[in-house]
Amino acid sequence: MNYCSSCGATVTLRVPEGDVLPRYVCDRCGTIHYINPKMVIGALADWEGKVLLCRRAIEPRLGKWTLPAGFMEMAETTAEAALRETQEEACARVELIDLYTLVNVPHIGQVHMFYRARLPAPVFAAGTESLEVALFDEADIPWGEIAFRSIVLTLRQFFEDRATGQFQFRTYDLPPLGQY
Amino acid sequence: MNYCSSCGATVTLRVPEGDVLPRYVCDRCGTIHYINPKMVIGALADWEGKVLLCRRAIEPRLGKWTLPAGFMEMAETTAEAALRETQEEACARVELIDLYTLVNVPHIGQVHMFYRARLPAPVFAAGTESLEVALFDEADIPWGEIAFRSIVLTLRQFFEDRATGQFQFRTYDLPPLGQY
Repeated sequence: MNYCSSCGATVTLRVPEGDVLPRYVCDRCGTIHYINPKMVIGALADWEGKVLLCRRAIEPRLGKWTLPAGFMEMAETTAEAALRETQEEACARVELIDLYTLVNVPHIGQVHMFYRARLPAPVFAAGTESLEVALFDEADIPWGEIAFRSIVLTLRQFFEDRATGQFQFRTYDLPPLGQY
Repeated sequence: MNYCSSCGATVTLRVPEGDVLPRYVCDRCGTIHYINPKMVIGALADWEGKVLLCRRAIEPRLGKWTLPAGFMEMAETTAEAALRETQEEACARVELIDLYTLVNVPHIGQVHMFYRARLPAPVFAAGTESLEVALFDEADIPWGEIAFRSIVLTLRQFFEDRATGQFQFRTYDLPPLGQY
């Protein structure tokens, strides 16, 4: 950030009075520009025991597999974001069950959340951000080709919980790894 | 938003190519400025059955009672945010139990989350954003003087769950009301 988005003057990174963290403060109008973490919301949808995955057509992790997910928009709920992203990336209308995982990714200022969902029929297609969309049995999940660690955690928890029949909401924290 | 925070030129609100929503796009460098919902994170801490509340020293809802909570910062986890806000607003060191409620407030672009927590000893004080901090028995909660609806929901769920001994994570969506 170099300029004030409100008045166009330059900004300086400094700790405002009464605050404890440095913020971008406008040198002219004094507006304090806060930068906060973003939410990435998605869905783990299954149809007859198979899980819906999308192969990414965009960076980062182009060509890798992911659950349909994306940045939450203003004026929507977390559930609406999960439904919209599944529609956009997998052209699939799913029924949400409940919020299933929350994964902190503090080194990139993100919180990922995934809903469990039902795909009522095997109807889906690649959206513009997907190269292909497919249903996978547990044995066929391309574990080495999953785009993000939060997806790996969510899929692993799903198969573990499914084995016991007890699905439970859980939170995770991801440290920086530089791997993926 | 009137100016590009990157290069200082004017911005135009329009739908970028390949997008479906209007964004602020820089007229000179083309940077797309996304605006996303923010997270407000707090804690419901109890000591011997009493709940820790703070009376707000700042707007909005100055003078009303709240759970310690505030905007999540970059580079922290949701749990770290809950601990930090409780320290800042109630000068209290609590032990988090688990994430307890997630409340969507889409009309103001916020998601509120509250952790359940233990206050190991009745040690607390008013931080700079609080007029006073106090422990309340269920019968003494000032229901008509609670600052935000997400706090009311979280407190109500806590006392309901405590009556059954079964605490469970839940999500809520708040519609616009104009009340509080």
